[in-house]
Amino acid sequence: MEALDITALLQGNRRMLAKAITLVESTREADIATAKHLLSQVHTRSGRSIRLGISGVPGVGKSTFIEVLGMKLIEAGHRVAVLAVDPSSPHTGGSILGDRTRMVRLSAQSEAFIRPSPSGGRLGGVARATRDAITLCEAAGFDRILVETVGVGQSEYEVASMTDLFVLLALTGAGDHLQGIKRGILEIVDILVINKADGDNREKAKVLAQEYVSALHLLHPEFDTPVLLTSATEAQGFEWFLTVIQNEIQQRQEQGLFEDRRKRQRVEAFKKALENEILRDYWQHPQVREHFATMASRIETGACSFQEALQVMLAHYKNSNL
Amino acid sequence: MEALDITALLQGNRRMLAKAITLVESTREADIATAKHLLSQVHTRSGRSIRLGISGVPGVGKSTFIEVLGMKLIEAGHRVAVLAVDPSSPHTGGSILGDRTRMVRLSAQSEAFIRPSPSGGRLGGVARATRDAITLCEAAGFDRILVETVGVGQSEYEVASMTDLFVLLALTGAGDHLQGIKRGILEIVDILVINKADGDNREKAKVLAQEYVSALHLLHPEFDTPVLLTSATEAQGFEWFLTVIQNEIQQRQEQGLFEDRRKRQRVEAFKKALENEILRDYWQHPQVREHFATMASRIETGACSFQEALQVMLAHYKNSNL
Repeated sequence: MEALDITALLQGNRRMLAKAITLVESTREADIATAKHLLSQVHTRSGRSIRLGISGVPGVGKSTFIEVLGMKLIEAGHRVAVLAVDPSSPHTGGSILGDRTRMVRLSAQSEAFIRPSPSGGRLGGVARATRDAITLCEAAGFDRILVETVGVGQSEYEVASMTDLFVLLALTGAGDHLQGIKRGILEIVDILVINKADGDNREKAKVLAQEYVSALHLLHPEFDTPVLLTSATEAQGFEWFLTVIQNEIQQRQEQGLFEDRRKRQRVEAFKKALENEILRDYWQHPQVREHFATMASRIETGACSFQEALQVMLAHYKNSNL
Repeated sequence: MEALDITALLQGNRRMLAKAITLVESTREADIATAKHLLSQVHTRSGRSIRLGISGVPGVGKSTFIEVLGMKLIEAGHRVAVLAVDPSSPHTGGSILGDRTRMVRLSAQSEAFIRPSPSGGRLGGVARATRDAITLCEAAGFDRILVETVGVGQSEYEVASMTDLFVLLALTGAGDHLQGIKRGILEIVDILVINKADGDNREKAKVLAQEYVSALHLLHPEFDTPVLLTSATEAQGFEWFLTVIQNEIQQRQEQGLFEDRRKRQRVEAFKKALENEILRDYWQHPQVREHFATMASRIETGACSFQEALQVMLAHYKNSNL
């Protein structure tokens, strides 16, 4: 296998970037050590980008939206990386029909880098790998990072926790009240976009936009979350979207909120990484694993309650100076 | 506040059961200790039930399905507990329109106990609390436990990991291929039900059922995952559903698979609980918290990389004999 060439990575070589991301996604012990080393080497080269989280239920037009957005950003002189977080298939990854080729135009651009979600992992692992992938993309000179997620469960929170602005794509529903979007999700939305606002749908989209403005105002009376309309298939509304993004970023930078959010995110991610290491360390001890096997067999048969077994394991851990 | 009366709980008193579940959901230190004590007291009284996980995207008719199913089970002489796992709103819990009153008929039955999802928690915490709630419901004599989840993200895996059979409700889609159900989810399905198979929809449902049979056969050539049709609004198909459930349980019991799955689930849940305790223990040490605060401020400003900070924290932990 070709060696990882850090100089080429820092110069923006996309093959090296893909290789580096594969490394940080790996769960092999040897790779983990190499990945850590790599990340500490490029650490000072990261951070200089705008990170956008983009979410929305299947069918909302996410791929087309991201493709159009990516093309506009490239036209404006940016280098665009698209990463995905999809934790919904830990068993095999991918949808039942397999990944169709998406974003054909964008992926043909030399200024674009597109990477599917790491597969086969639980959300925590996928999120950690994506955070590292952001670092690597930035080190490789990508200055606009789009982190995409399917609108399911907790992945939105994870994506919001690693991006500067969290954009939710919505649709005019077929009778659905505000599309069943959860209040919790609305609370973390920085910009709401009603996509497919074209043709007959445009008037309905305007009405829905007003509903969202009211709902968002109720949640956050202290600031006005932007609500806008786009049509990704007709490439409409993107100039305005980019202006809104720019305004939001500038405002937040001036008020210090931009850097505050990044700081908070770094500390949260650090805490998670630390907890992972503490557990890794715990399970490394052969005595712990042996002892766990014994207790597990007692738990299996119901010979011993969880609470008793936990107490025994903890007492053993604390008394053995591991 | 009224004291928790364990005898009343074991006799099936629903108010005491509700109280006990509130206790195991609590994250207050004092409650955690009381909850552990309670669980170890009722531990031998749990396990004697059939646990069904029921999932499906919003709009699939889950509430009506569970209501009809619950009524049929009560008619058959069972006591039915319905628990929910909905991790999608850690911030506030609940959908944007608030929880409407659901399952009106079922909740009026003295042989039914219905409990909404613990709110305000991450999936791990919600899942842990639901596992404990199952234990308590069983101790209170409920012998059919229905664990409901919205079809989002990883909650299905959590629900499948705490139930004996995982039932997925599906719909005939409006042109959607197999409704966008992820392959990973299909892999954990024990019984697939196409709901709303009534009126004009019935023929479409039959065609879709055949598609699912093929897809499931592709995934699991070694066994035939049952695929059936129901109409919850017309209460159709439930006798057959109950027969299928009974057959599946009986077959699995005869082959030892039923108990194997329970054992595996117990061990997995024990492992998670143990990891929680290890981390709780870690963060309890004032030195750890102080040291973390120092490193976090260095992380915030970017003065130090994750990798360095992690190494420092771990070395400190291992050398200090905490």
